[in-house]
Amino acid sequence: MLRYSIIGTGAVGGYFGARLARAGAAVRFLARSDYEAIKSHGLNVDSVAGSFSLPAPEVYSSTEHMPESDVVAVAVKTTSNGELPKLLAPLIKPGTVILIMQNGLGEESAIQAAFPEALVLGALCYICAWKDGPGSVVHRDKGTVTLGALSGRHDDDETRREALQQIARDFALAGVPADISDSLGTSRWRKLLWNIPFNGLSVTLDADTREIMASPSARRMAARLMEEVMRGAAAAGFPLEPDAAKKMLAYTETMTPYKPSMKLDWEAQRPMEIESMYRNPVRAARSAGVELHAIAHLADELEYMEARRAVSRG
Amino acid sequence: MLRYSIIGTGAVGGYFGARLARAGAAVRFLARSDYEAIKSHGLNVDSVAGSFSLPAPEVYSSTEHMPESDVVAVAVKTTSNGELPKLLAPLIKPGTVILIMQNGLGEESAIQAAFPEALVLGALCYICAWKDGPGSVVHRDKGTVTLGALSGRHDDDETRREALQQIARDFALAGVPADISDSLGTSRWRKLLWNIPFNGLSVTLDADTREIMASPSARRMAARLMEEVMRGAAAAGFPLEPDAAKKMLAYTETMTPYKPSMKLDWEAQRPMEIESMYRNPVRAARSAGVELHAIAHLADELEYMEARRAVSRG
Repeated sequence: MLRYSIIGTGAVGGYFGARLARAGAAVRFLARSDYEAIKSHGLNVDSVAGSFSLPAPEVYSSTEHMPESDVVAVAVKTTSNGELPKLLAPLIKPGTVILIMQNGLGEESAIQAAFPEALVLGALCYICAWKDGPGSVVHRDKGTVTLGALSGRHDDDETRREALQQIARDFALAGVPADISDSLGTSRWRKLLWNIPFNGLSVTLDADTREIMASPSARRMAARLMEEVMRGAAAAGFPLEPDAAKKMLAYTETMTPYKPSMKLDWEAQRPMEIESMYRNPVRAARSAGVELHAIAHLADELEYMEARRAVSRG
Repeated sequence: MLRYSIIGTGAVGGYFGARLARAGAAVRFLARSDYEAIKSHGLNVDSVAGSFSLPAPEVYSSTEHMPESDVVAVAVKTTSNGELPKLLAPLIKPGTVILIMQNGLGEESAIQAAFPEALVLGALCYICAWKDGPGSVVHRDKGTVTLGALSGRHDDDETRREALQQIARDFALAGVPADISDSLGTSRWRKLLWNIPFNGLSVTLDADTREIMASPSARRMAARLMEEVMRGAAAAGFPLEPDAAKKMLAYTETMTPYKPSMKLDWEAQRPMEIESMYRNPVRAARSAGVELHAIAHLADELEYMEARRAVSRG
């Protein structure tokens, strides 16, 4: 198996990293605020796919002293992406694979631009999970990844394909179903099809997925936002299947009622991923000549809520 | 002066009706829940343009016993429009002028359809005013009307013009600046240019006009909603001047900080004018092939808030 450095030991980094470690991979976790807790109590995964603990995970409080890995997996919130170039710098050698396990759009390109010598891949994490304390991850539904490479870099397709396949194999060995997408862009937009409506609406409407689906007005909002994602995807050159939005709505009805990550961020008074999840798709569509007004409105409303809370906290 | 029956003695009906009565017009007020209070304490207008009282206004609790007037002025909330055909029936004779003093879009056509023998006109009321108790109106800014006739009925242009001019003269005698619009449709859409952003956002963001204008994100929402109103107006055949939105934003900055009527309705737990102010413009644009997604999103959000409150009140 490959050696992994997991940057950010929250729900995503904690869950997938712990699965890989448990399966025998060398996994190094970066945990900053949670370092002491994980050092003392290990990493604990309460999972529908089988709970387990890593009593003594290899954990670091800084990237400075992390050993060289084959894959640097980025699992911090995109709201911290401004600091990624500095944070990752000690870890990246020519050919290091950087695996972006974040939500949103455009992060792979930004990191590729910061580290031109790295091989940047994306992982779309489909998982209902959250951190319910330092080193403690709750996993309640799904738990798969879709891997893909940035398009438009045909200089080294073979290396890229091999890296994707090797990571997919490692995930499979770790009990994590993993597939490889032919088009990372299409996969990113498909994930936005769910993330854009349900993350934002869960905050502005103060509602979980079941409440959104049960309300005719909220469901209309979700369907309209999905329609805009479909238009944006098509404009950006990554058209989804015509019935993708309909299927995603139907699928959401079957889901365990769920608070999306943005709702958890909001409740925990953490910054929300507005930029990567909303602004970047709106900008991508706009640069292709398409305005996504409902999405932009929702993004502005989230920003307004965040700004007002900052003021009220002084 | 003409004789007026004012249907609804809230801020709009109370203010303009009281001005007309004070200037000597025969004005009959319909007041249902406020009937006893007005009968006992009269109509009191606390106004930037000069405060005054009508100690014994001609007030009725039902349209059944109201005497015949030349103008039946409709000043109830559009949320009551479902009952208007029944409510107005006793008052309408062939040639009676019905003056729609409501917000929103499409109400003149609906009333004209219900009373084909009436002469339906519209009055756009530009006024910052509210009812702060039964028979008590507070007027803090503006206070003008723009009058207009439904287009597409060229059978009796002269009668229509004369009625508009006579009403405009009466308002002027009453100290209310009144002008006549060549296009009621254009005037209605121009008023929506303000009403659509500031009414809805004041509720969803819990903010007054100054707070909306002071926040970059809220201001962007307002500007985007205005852009959609401009597109809707053009699609519906009533294009506004290209700089209308920009001017309206600049004008709003000069306004006394203000809670729009929908915000007052929301706070008083009254139904909001979502249908006439949001759904009708969205439908009008859609039937001309244009989707107004941000406006539709805002309308759904208002409906969601209203529905949830109804549930929480049992």
